[in-house]
Amino acid sequence: MGDIISGRLEALRMKMRDSGVSATVIPQSDPHQSEYLASHWQARRYFSGFTGSAGTLVVTMSDAMLWTDSRYFIQASSQLSGSGIGLMKDGLAGTPSINAWLAANMVRGGVVGVDGWLVSAEAARSMESALAQYDLKLDMEFDPVDGLWADRPALPKGEIFVHELKYAGESACEKIGRIREALAGRMVKSVFISALDEIAWTLNIRACDVKCNPVATAFLYVGLTECVLFVDGDKLTAGVSAHLAEAGVRTRGYDGVADFLAGLPGDERVLIDAGKTAAVVACMLGDRVVEGECPVAMMKARKNAVQIDGFRHAMVRDGVALTEAFAEIDRRMREGVRTTELDVADILREKRSAQDLFFDESFDTIAGHGPNGAIVHYSATEETNAELRRGNLLLVDSGAQYLDGTTDITRTISLGDATALQKRDFTLVLKGMIALDMAVFPAGTRGVQLDVLAHQYVWRGQNNYLHGTGHGVGHFLNVHEGPQTIRNNNNMTPIAEGMVTSDEPGLYREGVHGVRCENLILTVKASPVAHGDGAPFLKFETLTLFPFDTTLIDMDLFTAEERAWLNGYHERVKAAIMPHLNDDMSRQWLEKATKAI
Amino acid sequence: MGDIISGRLEALRMKMRDSGVSATVIPQSDPHQSEYLASHWQARRYFSGFTGSAGTLVVTMSDAMLWTDSRYFIQASSQLSGSGIGLMKDGLAGTPSINAWLAANMVRGGVVGVDGWLVSAEAARSMESALAQYDLKLDMEFDPVDGLWADRPALPKGEIFVHELKYAGESACEKIGRIREALAGRMVKSVFISALDEIAWTLNIRACDVKCNPVATAFLYVGLTECVLFVDGDKLTAGVSAHLAEAGVRTRGYDGVADFLAGLPGDERVLIDAGKTAAVVACMLGDRVVEGECPVAMMKARKNAVQIDGFRHAMVRDGVALTEAFAEIDRRMREGVRTTELDVADILREKRSAQDLFFDESFDTIAGHGPNGAIVHYSATEETNAELRRGNLLLVDSGAQYLDGTTDITRTISLGDATALQKRDFTLVLKGMIALDMAVFPAGTRGVQLDVLAHQYVWRGQNNYLHGTGHGVGHFLNVHEGPQTIRNNNNMTPIAEGMVTSDEPGLYREGVHGVRCENLILTVKASPVAHGDGAPFLKFETLTLFPFDTTLIDMDLFTAEERAWLNGYHERVKAAIMPHLNDDMSRQWLEKATKAI
Repeated sequence: MGDIISGRLEALRMKMRDSGVSATVIPQSDPHQSEYLASHWQARRYFSGFTGSAGTLVVTMSDAMLWTDSRYFIQASSQLSGSGIGLMKDGLAGTPSINAWLAANMVRGGVVGVDGWLVSAEAARSMESALAQYDLKLDMEFDPVDGLWADRPALPKGEIFVHELKYAGESACEKIGRIREALAGRMVKSVFISALDEIAWTLNIRACDVKCNPVATAFLYVGLTECVLFVDGDKLTAGVSAHLAEAGVRTRGYDGVADFLAGLPGDERVLIDAGKTAAVVACMLGDRVVEGECPVAMMKARKNAVQIDGFRHAMVRDGVALTEAFAEIDRRMREGVRTTELDVADILREKRSAQDLFFDESFDTIAGHGPNGAIVHYSATEETNAELRRGNLLLVDSGAQYLDGTTDITRTISLGDATALQKRDFTLVLKGMIALDMAVFPAGTRGVQLDVLAHQYVWRGQNNYLHGTGHGVGHFLNVHEGPQTIRNNNNMTPIAEGMVTSDEPGLYREGVHGVRCENLILTVKASPVAHGDGAPFLKFETLTLFPFDTTLIDMDLFTAEERAWLNGYHERVKAAIMPHLNDDMSRQWLEKATKAI
Repeated sequence: MGDIISGRLEALRMKMRDSGVSATVIPQSDPHQSEYLASHWQARRYFSGFTGSAGTLVVTMSDAMLWTDSRYFIQASSQLSGSGIGLMKDGLAGTPSINAWLAANMVRGGVVGVDGWLVSAEAARSMESALAQYDLKLDMEFDPVDGLWADRPALPKGEIFVHELKYAGESACEKIGRIREALAGRMVKSVFISALDEIAWTLNIRACDVKCNPVATAFLYVGLTECVLFVDGDKLTAGVSAHLAEAGVRTRGYDGVADFLAGLPGDERVLIDAGKTAAVVACMLGDRVVEGECPVAMMKARKNAVQIDGFRHAMVRDGVALTEAFAEIDRRMREGVRTTELDVADILREKRSAQDLFFDESFDTIAGHGPNGAIVHYSATEETNAELRRGNLLLVDSGAQYLDGTTDITRTISLGDATALQKRDFTLVLKGMIALDMAVFPAGTRGVQLDVLAHQYVWRGQNNYLHGTGHGVGHFLNVHEGPQTIRNNNNMTPIAEGMVTSDEPGLYREGVHGVRCENLILTVKASPVAHGDGAPFLKFETLTLFPFDTTLIDMDLFTAEERAWLNGYHERVKAAIMPHLNDDMSRQWLEKATKAI
């Protein structure tokens, strides 16, 4: 593999030389600034051989370096070996930023090439100004792939399908109407949307273009009177075309964006989200650009009554599948059947795919046994695949896409003989999860304010977890969505009514074990009438329906209030799941798992 | 009074006409952007008759309006009556911003006059750009006071004195050295400091220029080799001059700033804090300005070992004074001696001023009885002065300046026959105060992250308090200081080791009662060694030493952990205070007040 990569880099350098580019930056990105990519856009993987989901490759005439974060240090170091590409460990104190490294390794006046479709307008601006300090220029028209990647996978060609109104709860036509109202309120004439999940939500369309993310590759323009979807015609069935026509949406080719934008009136003010829109698009729009959050982000995040109802039903089916899966894992452990992390993922997939309205998993299952549980974004491979053994913890983070809702749940279970340390760590994490779940707060409260509720007990024990506590979850859409988060950052978006967010504190001991407890929580009104100064109070309703391992609870650390919460939750889980279980083994397992403590 | 104000406004309008200014804005401010002002700077009070500590007067040829916040609605409405000045209730939904009101009430092309010494560079910039949208200009050279305010008080002439090294713990010379290091690290040649408390801290000087704030009116320039204090020569004794000379500080007249800044080299990069520096100063510096937080803000906030030791000693003396005062109030209630809110303030002042190293109060005592306790910034006047009566709550927020530390404490006590609602409200507030006090968190954590710990129980009861939970406290300096806060805002300053911050949740029922519990808390290391990823964990040490009213605790709402905290705290208070009490009444009162629950 090392030789193949070297060859690819040499070809790239030839092209750079011909184009007057002395360095090129190849990010993990697509023209929609997606988190997960179709294979067509895996250029960073092609040129580096590194397969992780995050990382940026930088190539100069003499060097090639890959920046990635701590989740991937081990994997990257192994995959890069022999390629001549150096590893830059992002987030470590000694690691220079890409811009600083370029400044130190380039001659003044040099040109840095990057494909302007693969960086957001925001990122390009900050890169341009950082490089300008060192007298370096950014060329955003340099495409490192064109002509070099012979067997490049095509753009996703899969057919689009309609996400039916009985699941979506609001027609595309109504949504477009709401978007237009929002545009009028912001004094702009139109919005250009690049984010695939925002487009899927707006038009009630879905596809299989990206693994686990049921989106269709497209751009969307919504003007006050006109609405245009830029999409490959092969992806449109007659039914979808009719659906779009009914919503007043015209279609043009996926590559028709440039011509269309060039034809817009010079004085049309067009809204774009600078963090989710390619730099190239911002350039095309020029003076017409008005930057701001796309109104779809907040509309999509606040689920309607039909979607909420769908989530509640999907959670029952997911709970049934999880019960069957964990009962099966329990049986295998009791009977001494060899079971690995990959087996756990297989069992979960099998049980979920037997459920009504199942479409796909919502991400690759993380099943981390013992020390593997401490690797936050662990994904078992044939090499690392551990066999489940008594005395260990097993951390399982998994989820599914159902037509009526998306799930994401983490449970950490004991495989027997739980130690005091396992119990302590588990209990501190669970206490934090419960504290956030029980929060009541005035409308307008942001995630950064609530985060400490989940962190507090882990912190009191002088441990920490460095990932976020909560992310938004789409409705039969991406399992990670914005605009809200619950974590230590300056996100100004409030945790608003109707949002579905994860609640997932953790605690990781390198080389020992990992603990994470995760439920999805829905923001609801705390009471029907407003109090005091008029701001209504909000609280959370737990959507996820599956028991926690009570054998891992250290009762000395658990308060009466927490016990009451857990017993009440388990009663609810049992009542919801039990009627749908068909086998005695699963019924007995659930009976035992939900027994009051 | 109404006629006098009308006359003053007419004179002002004549001057505006002569100056080509069609509106003028008179803020509550001084050239140092202080929170509390010397009488010399009370121009807003002079032209409006309104005496509140916050508010902005706007005068056009036909109208005059005063913007102030909810603390002052009642007072302003009464003080403005008959003056022809309208009241604008800041923070209410229907109230326009000053800029929006000007836009609606001025002819395009008009000029808004404001004294550029009384608005910060940051505020002026945002005002200028907001007005420009309506084609209005800002004239920052218009001084509404000059020539009109005949009996204007002089600039404060009181003598400066040295804050001795045995209290300050670090010499002015050492501090200047640290500032210079910080400047070098930020690639600037100098810093120009306007904030009075930053100057007082840097040079270890104090004065009585502002009530309760022991600062001296001055500006300070710190360059890499030169240090200049701009101060009225009358304020300098021989001792202070020698102290300054020893630290390498030259002095020039208070009005010498303009000449000095004009003489700085054109390429000297001068740091200013744009939020604490007058717009005029930024103009004088022009291209030389580098905006950023003054390094003094953080240095001043992180107290050294001598200051911390001083705080601990001051808290003992303050606790003794409070014990004597509350024992006396208790006696008067028992014996039926008429006692009013103003009496409470008098008793506290009397007991505190008898303590060693007492210098002044740190703010005007807030003693709010019954419904008055619900007015957050209540200050009793002869008209409102309520008599203490059994069955009510009494909220007392008070503090003192001692040479070795500043105090700020709030206690809410029952005057007997506590009701269930009084107990519930008190307990929810106290639980929040304790939860914040018990927090453990990694270094780098900000106040916005911790705030919910104090808010959580009040919120769960669907009540709220709209003031901040915590502010920094100076060391024998301003009782409100930055840069840290604990509240819902985007303050990026972490709660760092050595900071002294208030912990003061509350709950206010209009027309019924108010509850607030406040201790000062010091940030300390949670353990001597760093854990996990290396970020040390921090926690709080309670500095304040005075019991809470245990008769107000609803034990059903109090957890075992909270009871243990309170009993431990009361044991500590008793051990610290009892040995210093000389009268039996106070000793008995403390014995009873600190009895374990």
